[in-house]
Amino acid sequence: MHMREPGICRVDVARGELQGATNRYTKTLRDLAGLYEDEEAYRRLAAEMGDKVVYEVTDYKPSNDAGDMIIGVTRMLPGKVGREYFLTRGHIHANADRPEMYYGESGHGIMLLESPAGEIRTVEIFPRSLCYVPPYWIHRSVNVGSTELVMTFAYPADSGQDYDIIAKAGGMRSRIVDDGKGGWAAVDNAGYRFRPAELVESIFAKAG
Amino acid sequence: MHMREPGICRVDVARGELQGATNRYTKTLRDLAGLYEDEEAYRRLAAEMGDKVVYEVTDYKPSNDAGDMIIGVTRMLPGKVGREYFLTRGHIHANADRPEMYYGESGHGIMLLESPAGEIRTVEIFPRSLCYVPPYWIHRSVNVGSTELVMTFAYPADSGQDYDIIAKAGGMRSRIVDDGKGGWAAVDNAGYRFRPAELVESIFAKAG
Repeated sequence: MHMREPGICRVDVARGELQGATNRYTKTLRDLAGLYEDEEAYRRLAAEMGDKVVYEVTDYKPSNDAGDMIIGVTRMLPGKVGREYFLTRGHIHANADRPEMYYGESGHGIMLLESPAGEIRTVEIFPRSLCYVPPYWIHRSVNVGSTELVMTFAYPADSGQDYDIIAKAGGMRSRIVDDGKGGWAAVDNAGYRFRPAELVESIFAKAG
Repeated sequence: MHMREPGICRVDVARGELQGATNRYTKTLRDLAGLYEDEEAYRRLAAEMGDKVVYEVTDYKPSNDAGDMIIGVTRMLPGKVGREYFLTRGHIHANADRPEMYYGESGHGIMLLESPAGEIRTVEIFPRSLCYVPPYWIHRSVNVGSTELVMTFAYPADSGQDYDIIAKAGGMRSRIVDDGKGGWAAVDNAGYRFRPAELVESIFAKAG
């Protein structure tokens, strides 16, 4: 029997990364076409920001085994496209019955969650907030603060990510915007289309 | 389909607990009979400390489902029994192919790991250290610092704990002791008995 060696990483909160990570990916604003409501503001800001990384994920993936876990760190710049706060692409797990944990390290964020049937939940994340995302929730992180949002996360190694589920519905049902009074608000996404009942059923049937 | 609600807890590092936990358990030194090498020092200190909690676990358990996760916080007092630093009972997962993540919040600890065949590893934990315990490793936390050791952890909800595996071998193969020079050292446990090959094989066969 091959025993895997214990791993030791360090969360560098100031740099917003996992030291000792096995994987890293980055996104520029240009990579996020179609996600924001204000397309004109998006095009302008994406051109201006160029290759600047708006969010980054570093993680440690011991294996793909069903019982194994991936742990990592996500770092998001603060900013807005029009009135809408910077966000991640968002996903549901490809094996949709897999959960995820997010843990606030610095900054102020929102975990925006949507059920396949279109119910919305928002969970505020501050340093030391531990947010549990149960199975079957589509989830996206939003930075509503004025500093970088850094979170540590953990999820089963065989979860996978399905990003298309959001794109096919015209986005998530809510958008997180500046309320003009120093705070944030969840407002309706005018382009949202509810999923047909058969599609909702098929998502619940897609257990890993 | 019943969707479970998202969870939000907070890690209170100063109190060493998870606010919003669904479970809590505590251990006094009296609960830990047979774990320490110096039995005379153990009896004296256990009587002196009485009902004082030496370690405590608070956790959030959404469900027992295979793909689900338990997250929590462990808090350990600093101290020694003779030359040996305060430790947790330690366990292997009952479904032995399940991993665990420990994340340092405050203090200075050691994760002591032992393979079923008796190989030993020690991983030092400081604040923001992320320690990955792969499947099949017996593991125990040791507080080698002068302040409380607080760690956040996460593991698959169907892992379970088997404590007997340590007791039946006469303890773990190494003890973590004060080296008399201001640091810690791993020394042999004179009472340790290697597991027979058939027992080692049966542990690897016990996948969840």
